[in-house]
Amino acid sequence: MTSPVRPSTGALRPLGLHDVTIDGGFWGERQALNAAATIPHVEAWLERLGWTGNFDAAVEGRLPADRAGREFSDSEIYKLLEGMAWEIGRTGSVGLEARFTALAARVSAAQEPDGYLNTMFGRPGQKPRYSDLQWGHELYCFGHLIQAGVARARTHGHDAFVETVVRAADHVCEQFGPDGDQRVCGHPEIEVALAELARVTGERRYLDQARAFVERRGHGVLGDIELGTAYFQDDVPVRETEVFAGHAVRALYLAAGAVDVALETGDDELLAAVAAATTRTLARRTYLTGGMGAHHEGESFGVDFELPPDRSYSETCAGIASVMLNHRLLLATGEARYADAVERTLFNVVATSPAADGRGFYYTNTLHQRVPGKEVVPDEVSPRASSSLRAPFFAVSCCPTNLTRTFASLGAYVATASDDGVQLQQYAPGAVRASLPAGPVELAVRTAYPADGRIEVEVVQAPVGAWDLTLRVPAWAVGATVAVDDGAPAPADPGYVTVAGPGAGGVVVLDLPMAPRWTFPDPRIDAVRGQVAVERGPIVMALESVDLESVDLDSVGLGADVGAVRVRTDVAPRVHDGRVQVPVTVVEVADGDWPYGQAAGPAAGQERCVDLVEYHAWAERGPSTMRVWMPVR
Amino acid sequence: MTSPVRPSTGALRPLGLHDVTIDGGFWGERQALNAAATIPHVEAWLERLGWTGNFDAAVEGRLPADRAGREFSDSEIYKLLEGMAWEIGRTGSVGLEARFTALAARVSAAQEPDGYLNTMFGRPGQKPRYSDLQWGHELYCFGHLIQAGVARARTHGHDAFVETVVRAADHVCEQFGPDGDQRVCGHPEIEVALAELARVTGERRYLDQARAFVERRGHGVLGDIELGTAYFQDDVPVRETEVFAGHAVRALYLAAGAVDVALETGDDELLAAVAAATTRTLARRTYLTGGMGAHHEGESFGVDFELPPDRSYSETCAGIASVMLNHRLLLATGEARYADAVERTLFNVVATSPAADGRGFYYTNTLHQRVPGKEVVPDEVSPRASSSLRAPFFAVSCCPTNLTRTFASLGAYVATASDDGVQLQQYAPGAVRASLPAGPVELAVRTAYPADGRIEVEVVQAPVGAWDLTLRVPAWAVGATVAVDDGAPAPADPGYVTVAGPGAGGVVVLDLPMAPRWTFPDPRIDAVRGQVAVERGPIVMALESVDLESVDLDSVGLGADVGAVRVRTDVAPRVHDGRVQVPVTVVEVADGDWPYGQAAGPAAGQERCVDLVEYHAWAERGPSTMRVWMPVR
Repeated sequence: MTSPVRPSTGALRPLGLHDVTIDGGFWGERQALNAAATIPHVEAWLERLGWTGNFDAAVEGRLPADRAGREFSDSEIYKLLEGMAWEIGRTGSVGLEARFTALAARVSAAQEPDGYLNTMFGRPGQKPRYSDLQWGHELYCFGHLIQAGVARARTHGHDAFVETVVRAADHVCEQFGPDGDQRVCGHPEIEVALAELARVTGERRYLDQARAFVERRGHGVLGDIELGTAYFQDDVPVRETEVFAGHAVRALYLAAGAVDVALETGDDELLAAVAAATTRTLARRTYLTGGMGAHHEGESFGVDFELPPDRSYSETCAGIASVMLNHRLLLATGEARYADAVERTLFNVVATSPAADGRGFYYTNTLHQRVPGKEVVPDEVSPRASSSLRAPFFAVSCCPTNLTRTFASLGAYVATASDDGVQLQQYAPGAVRASLPAGPVELAVRTAYPADGRIEVEVVQAPVGAWDLTLRVPAWAVGATVAVDDGAPAPADPGYVTVAGPGAGGVVVLDLPMAPRWTFPDPRIDAVRGQVAVERGPIVMALESVDLESVDLDSVGLGADVGAVRVRTDVAPRVHDGRVQVPVTVVEVADGDWPYGQAAGPAAGQERCVDLVEYHAWAERGPSTMRVWMPVR
Repeated sequence: MTSPVRPSTGALRPLGLHDVTIDGGFWGERQALNAAATIPHVEAWLERLGWTGNFDAAVEGRLPADRAGREFSDSEIYKLLEGMAWEIGRTGSVGLEARFTALAARVSAAQEPDGYLNTMFGRPGQKPRYSDLQWGHELYCFGHLIQAGVARARTHGHDAFVETVVRAADHVCEQFGPDGDQRVCGHPEIEVALAELARVTGERRYLDQARAFVERRGHGVLGDIELGTAYFQDDVPVRETEVFAGHAVRALYLAAGAVDVALETGDDELLAAVAAATTRTLARRTYLTGGMGAHHEGESFGVDFELPPDRSYSETCAGIASVMLNHRLLLATGEARYADAVERTLFNVVATSPAADGRGFYYTNTLHQRVPGKEVVPDEVSPRASSSLRAPFFAVSCCPTNLTRTFASLGAYVATASDDGVQLQQYAPGAVRASLPAGPVELAVRTAYPADGRIEVEVVQAPVGAWDLTLRVPAWAVGATVAVDDGAPAPADPGYVTVAGPGAGGVVVLDLPMAPRWTFPDPRIDAVRGQVAVERGPIVMALESVDLESVDLDSVGLGADVGAVRVRTDVAPRVHDGRVQVPVTVVEVADGDWPYGQAAGPAAGQERCVDLVEYHAWAERGPSTMRVWMPVR
């Protein structure tokens, strides 16, 4: 039961942290780094900035005078607690357990007798409770508190912190129930949290409240704001939403909560509406990386096909929210394309945010950096949307804490089960265990994916009865093959490939084609017309100026102006010395007084091969410029 | 002396509203509409919203309780007063004179004994004076007050309102002089105003204060803000500025003031710095329309070549500010390229903002509208950056009032004089009079420009002595000719063409080539790669969806998705039935689940010709989509 999402119905059921072990590799290393570096880093920053201390100040009657941070800062402590809880569940760390308990106790101590808990509202000198639902984030904070409680309950069981969480949820239900305040929070999050708490506790009341919040929204209950009511999804009811719009994280959290509500209440119409909106959003409002949100203004989705790479907001939290939503839709429908979206977003948004040392983060994830980023001052808080180099912490610091809980719970995305068998959704070395109607099964997965496309699955323990082993073949993996034991490889089309009942000791090998490939954009995406990207497996590649400097292109005075490089797409990108390379020539551009007039000359000069970098690893070598989409010669 | 800018030195001197008459045509019609519709419209809205009433409330002690509008709303009344003053100077309207006097009296009544005048600050319950220089706009408001006073003094002479203005300026000099507050205002404007007041009054003190404001800025005197100190140009001193950055209107007003200060103090280094920054900004940070400001966030310039057409903020006021700056540089240097920039910006930004009825306005001027704009609610105030259909007024309503003063003073941009003769800088039918050392001269200009390229200049009165008649040949006008009397046309290269001493009755004909032409972007402008625009004379053309609907393209389900159209650039755009047309075909795009993958197919289907619309006239036929840059087949 140790997974963040446990629907009581749907096509697939998740396998949790006690069912799936990731042993090293791309994601295992990141989980280890999360535990060793990111969680302590975030813990220290929350203390240092006084955001954790707000709870102590509340207990000691020092609010509002001593309050630090923005109105939503409580939520950062909750997201960290959730991350710690999953990490404890994953590893059983005794040291972390002690830190969790101490931190949770400080939070619990600030809870008021009626269950209310927030350091920003309700005291003399503060705004009254729920007096600013548009921007106050009170229910948003409760949502993250509850998600932390769900993680704790699933990894540890009932304790004082879970008791705090249940009392907080009861307070919310009383305050906003059928006889209470009929409004919603400006920032969705409570929906997904209450739905999951209902799953943990079996209390229908929480589900009803989650449903109420989903249904109330979209009818203008929050009033207008300068950014427009679409900003917080109060312009159109969820079940009438055709495509996601407004603030991306808000839209995606809300949609995830709506899936939960739809599944638990058997509301097929609501589920279909969210699925259709997700489909259209993926087809028209999503970056190649899986990133969502094209506007810095309002941190919001653009309109269809408005996907400028240099303006991509693509907030890390929106990536996490997209993973949450697509994972829920995968469980609900069993359709591989949702797992494809999870994979793309994990490798190219979630993995891009943290620095190699786990102590710096991108808040936004641009696909095109025009000017070299500034060196980050190590001990300085950054503005949120500064996408130059990864920063240690932000004035609005949702992303680092959100990453802690995502990395700690990554195991939950790897595999699913159904009555028929086990489905491997993501590929990482490790073990997968499940209890099927046919009996228990255990798999050992061996792979260097995504560095290599070979995935070897050994059946360590086979069920007594009939069962299926199902492997996802990503949509990009045209030409994949699957081989059983020593059998000949057979073609495996994108979607799922199923092997019926391999016995103990049986080995299934999935081979995914990993040659780098050109990827062209839909011609309706104006911002990347005449440009092309390179992908290798699930990894989006990028052209970074530091790699251009290593090639002799200085005769054209290229400097950081990557815009003058042209690639030729009539030959495939090549792999050389383990690096993906593309052939480039340079366009010479004369400077003038006015940048409009004659057509530019053709690309000139000798063709050279330039290394690309994995997009998730860019800007690890100092200030640079970068582009995912490269002009075609 | 009736022009907004009267430097005491420089290459050229301006001719003012009493020297230049515009009789109908493109600009004459707009001047008439400004007087008949826009000025009364703005007047009524300022009353209706209570912004004018703030002055009455100040007098009656009803502030802050009864205050309406934002912190800078006083400035809108001042800009309107300036517009009225120029209009009175232009036409001598008795009715407008009465309205001006009444409105000015209400403003003057609110002035405090020490000269301070602002309805937002300094009273019990309001913030103290100058307690919020970052955002308070107090000196910005004083600047517009002073500019209104300058207009009044030049068109009418000293009166009670001018007295108010002088007392306000004296207050500013005392408050911010050598022994006073050493900071600056978050929004430049006071610089240009004080410099001009010094020119009007001969008082050196105002010039010194203007210079002090220019010099202080750029040293972090305002403190940091979330948008960064570049937002209000407090990061780099003006004389070290290499290219304009930050909030476009702020940057351009400041630069205009710096030119004034440089000229009046003989500071060649400062003048050269502003000229160089202007040159680089025109070459790298300016839209084809002349529009400036690529970011909605911070209403600011982007970096070099960051010019997305669909995100162009291109604020109307930034266009006006660019005209102000380029006009000053023209007067200072006598270089035709600054007059080119004025022309481009007037026709394609300033003329774009007002609706055909003079009662609606664009605040921002996008070059690509992706979704049809919403119908404007006639009596509703719009958010400032809503660029769909022209709106009657805005919550931040600088642009409509700024237009009133610009249209009323347009005559001042038409012609200049030097000791050698007269220079026609802009082409409009009417009369131009000047006093030269050689004697008085009067010209009659006959033209339908820009509908037609023929400009006929008749010398009605010739000076006694030697003189030159100089005509600007725009940079785009390759192939222009000039003919004197009945002589053969001679080639006239872009820049200036000079005719020596035509006598009374002599006629000089300039012929500018008006065939529509393809215009290609610099290859470093990523956002319009693979696209092309059409210009005809000084007019930028646009493809509007309402014109596509009139062509039989329905078989491809084109709808409003103009993005699927491709033009062929191997033939020139044609003129048919007086309309500019381009040949288009359509790209068929299949909808899929993911917009990245295979390259799209070639353009298909029958080629059709589609009318273009003058960019300044788009969206006059109801909601539509529009693009200036069209994808190439």
